[in-house]
Amino acid sequence: MSSPAASDNLMEAIVSLAKRRGFIYPSSEIYGGLNGFFDYGPLGSELKKNIRDCWWNDMVRRRDDVVGLESSIIMHPKVWEASGHVAGFSDPLVDCEKSKQRYRADQLFFAQVRITNPEFGPDVVDALFSKGRIRKSDHESLKQSPLPTQVFVGYVSALESEDTIGALQKEAEEFKKKFQIRGTLEPVDRTKREMADVVSDEIAFIPSPATGEPGSLTMPRAFNMMFQTNVGAMTDSSSVAYLRPETAQGMFVDFKNVIDTTRVKLPFGIAQIGKSFRNEITPRNFIFRSREFEQMEMEYFIHEDADWSKCHQEWIEWCRQWLLSIGLPEAKLSLYAHKKEKLAFYSKGTTDIMFEYPFGVQELWGIAARGSYDLTQHGTASGKPQEMFDETTKKKFVPHVIEPAVGVDRILLAVLCAAYAVEDVTDEKGNTEQRTVLRLSPRIAPVKVAVLPLIKNKELLVARAKDLHTKLKRKYAVQYDDGGAIGKRYRRQDEAGTPWCVTIDFDTIEKPGDTFTLRERDTMKQTRITEAELFKLLDEQVY
Amino acid sequence: MSSPAASDNLMEAIVSLAKRRGFIYPSSEIYGGLNGFFDYGPLGSELKKNIRDCWWNDMVRRRDDVVGLESSIIMHPKVWEASGHVAGFSDPLVDCEKSKQRYRADQLFFAQVRITNPEFGPDVVDALFSKGRIRKSDHESLKQSPLPTQVFVGYVSALESEDTIGALQKEAEEFKKKFQIRGTLEPVDRTKREMADVVSDEIAFIPSPATGEPGSLTMPRAFNMMFQTNVGAMTDSSSVAYLRPETAQGMFVDFKNVIDTTRVKLPFGIAQIGKSFRNEITPRNFIFRSREFEQMEMEYFIHEDADWSKCHQEWIEWCRQWLLSIGLPEAKLSLYAHKKEKLAFYSKGTTDIMFEYPFGVQELWGIAARGSYDLTQHGTASGKPQEMFDETTKKKFVPHVIEPAVGVDRILLAVLCAAYAVEDVTDEKGNTEQRTVLRLSPRIAPVKVAVLPLIKNKELLVARAKDLHTKLKRKYAVQYDDGGAIGKRYRRQDEAGTPWCVTIDFDTIEKPGDTFTLRERDTMKQTRITEAELFKLLDEQVY
Repeated sequence: MSSPAASDNLMEAIVSLAKRRGFIYPSSEIYGGLNGFFDYGPLGSELKKNIRDCWWNDMVRRRDDVVGLESSIIMHPKVWEASGHVAGFSDPLVDCEKSKQRYRADQLFFAQVRITNPEFGPDVVDALFSKGRIRKSDHESLKQSPLPTQVFVGYVSALESEDTIGALQKEAEEFKKKFQIRGTLEPVDRTKREMADVVSDEIAFIPSPATGEPGSLTMPRAFNMMFQTNVGAMTDSSSVAYLRPETAQGMFVDFKNVIDTTRVKLPFGIAQIGKSFRNEITPRNFIFRSREFEQMEMEYFIHEDADWSKCHQEWIEWCRQWLLSIGLPEAKLSLYAHKKEKLAFYSKGTTDIMFEYPFGVQELWGIAARGSYDLTQHGTASGKPQEMFDETTKKKFVPHVIEPAVGVDRILLAVLCAAYAVEDVTDEKGNTEQRTVLRLSPRIAPVKVAVLPLIKNKELLVARAKDLHTKLKRKYAVQYDDGGAIGKRYRRQDEAGTPWCVTIDFDTIEKPGDTFTLRERDTMKQTRITEAELFKLLDEQVY
Repeated sequence: MSSPAASDNLMEAIVSLAKRRGFIYPSSEIYGGLNGFFDYGPLGSELKKNIRDCWWNDMVRRRDDVVGLESSIIMHPKVWEASGHVAGFSDPLVDCEKSKQRYRADQLFFAQVRITNPEFGPDVVDALFSKGRIRKSDHESLKQSPLPTQVFVGYVSALESEDTIGALQKEAEEFKKKFQIRGTLEPVDRTKREMADVVSDEIAFIPSPATGEPGSLTMPRAFNMMFQTNVGAMTDSSSVAYLRPETAQGMFVDFKNVIDTTRVKLPFGIAQIGKSFRNEITPRNFIFRSREFEQMEMEYFIHEDADWSKCHQEWIEWCRQWLLSIGLPEAKLSLYAHKKEKLAFYSKGTTDIMFEYPFGVQELWGIAARGSYDLTQHGTASGKPQEMFDETTKKKFVPHVIEPAVGVDRILLAVLCAAYAVEDVTDEKGNTEQRTVLRLSPRIAPVKVAVLPLIKNKELLVARAKDLHTKLKRKYAVQYDDGGAIGKRYRRQDEAGTPWCVTIDFDTIEKPGDTFTLRERDTMKQTRITEAELFKLLDEQVY
């Protein structure tokens, strides 16, 4: 039925549709844009709001054990000291001191150039040494005769790409040619490493990707990913504050306030939706990894003796079911349990719900069992123990927590990718044409119904259409469209992801029953429906 | 009927209720708080969301001429150069170079100390001069004999307070005593001025409020109120970016994108809800003037030849009606038209809807007619003219704009202030007690209905209550409460602003009709209602 665009071009097609139909624009585009920032247009802001509202309704309003919170984006800097973000929320970066370029150490690779059966004289060895490619000790050993069967003659480097090995291999071949080295070049993949793993006595000999020459790269240094600012009139260390890199700490810092001012009892959750900021060195994959993004996080507090594993599993399944409820296909979802040895010391386990994006299977929703780490940290740092009292054991304890954390933008991108289809359709005259359709779930579609008067110069017909439109828009996001042929209007709505079109036609005003044509987006089937039936359909499908 | 708390203590009572019931907490409270930042708790986050949703529904979804937008908080720095914020969005500040304190120049006052019929010798004059209180020229003229009838002997200063004049007068009296000056001290109110108006040859003689001594204050300097940060790996001028001080510029910068990707025709509006940040030197009045806040702004674009004044008036009235629709009393609203001579050169007029807060009548919603200023500025700065084409005149033109801009937090505070009441109520036994009630409109109340089983150990009764609760929470924010006496539960809901309580009692399960007790918050009247009637009531009142 659906003939999806070639997966290579799928992202391009989605980015293009998102721009063309007003879902997503690059931020500040008239000024050349700002890398890692995006704006949501008229359809995008509705889609985003619907995703947020569905989550809030399901997570907070329809559950009896979760309450909401909206904490500030800028919090006291001590919050981020206690949480570990000031010390540890960083990426290792490497500077090229000559070009002033900066690289993420895990995205810059290097490899040794090794030659088997080498054959060259002291002039080559002198050149390698004078150009800073080899150490003094190498210089001496390479002057020995005969040369060993395999020798090391320097390093090459390359930025991460779809074929990093290939790029390194090419660099090595050029290296060999440049220094007129004879012998067999060994494949670089045996020695390939990322710069994050470089050791100090190697760094001076690795060429900068900017200049091609060694000597200008620094050892990797931690670069904190929190955006920093100053609050108040002073601009010094006393006024430093951070834009939150996650919403989660708000729930921990307000934990005591929530238990003191509501009637929650364990187990219970605190949920929040809001913007977070991370100064990513290389934002990428459209809105998947951006610098400003929106999170939906929930901290579910449980007794220290509760069965965390069972609770963890329940939340993983809840999140998976929720993703299905907004229309993500089960086949594109998978689970990835983080390996024990990669977890932080306090973590009991983390499972990610993965989604098959066009650019690969990537993390969508992380569900972490964080023990009592965060509350304990804030209890210690603030001097105010974050404890609850157990009426049975008559002992105080620090609750443990399960944290499902997901990004609105990542969900929105997943939704667009899963919904996008280009397919051949045959019209009533037998002509085949292509249509682009977004198969968005009615729960999150930006426009729920389009109201279309068949023609726009028939007073009675237009009046009935406007009347229906007015009634619908009291409750739903709807559109009134009287521009162009009806088929063209259907296509326009298909592309916007509108699940239903309602056409007010001559049968509506001339035949008994006051029915409209209901045209369903995915099947393109047309049936007749009354106003009451339409409201019932929406009431059932949209919430 | 209602006996409001004394207006002096009203704010205190509201802040206390807001904290106690989980509406609003100080941000990062366990770390001592962060001045100018607040968190919204379980009830507060619902109330805030409801205000946002009502506005979005009425402004975007129910209108055919307004579309939504969500632009990023961090935008290209050139946006703020073009908008004038980099150059002009500032407060004048005065530094005390000795104490390192900073003062807003419009909140620091000074006055001359003048003596009539002075009587003192050269020792006093020498002391005044050596302590830096008077100029060399004053020193000479004060040594003349006889002294003039009135002489100037120095300056005093004081921070703005409820009685600034009184504070200055007290300083002047101490000044007179300290230097043993004889004669009559003139009232300081005749020479009182704010530091924003100081001239350069005075500044050296005005004492710092921090030290009491002159010589350490600087002339007022512009302090930009935008929070600054750096984007990307570099921390230098090339990477400077700002947190937006308003959402409005997003609509201007995306203007072209919106007209190119939707089917809007003039006049039309672009609306946005989102966080903004201003580094206020003196945040005050609870959430009225904070450093992080949320705005709901709309830019309504009109033809350059359109009747802007009529459009301006229509929007003022729309905003006023909207405030009434969410329950603000008409008597507390007023209009203030900015004086022509105080407007920016491009402004055609600004009218503020004012609200009578406990701390005074203050701006709630500004409706500005900004001409074509913003689009023209961005057209020039970006090199991309922000024009539309007039099909009639066949000419290009830059649209003009009407901008209604309001803060969510200010509305929320107005709503709390207007809704708060403490009143005497008499129970069935004739006992009088006080109840605190929030008379929130059903449109925005955090909890719409509380479902209360009369007792919690009667299986049938509890089952019916839970069934009703489940049905209600599919659509509405509701609460189930079975804790304590029914009267106590009513009071709890009164304080939370819940418009209706539904009690499932013995009549529900024993008598025909399956009816509940509906208890109305404001009148406290109790009637019987069926499930269908309850849903109809909510459907009519909540949207």
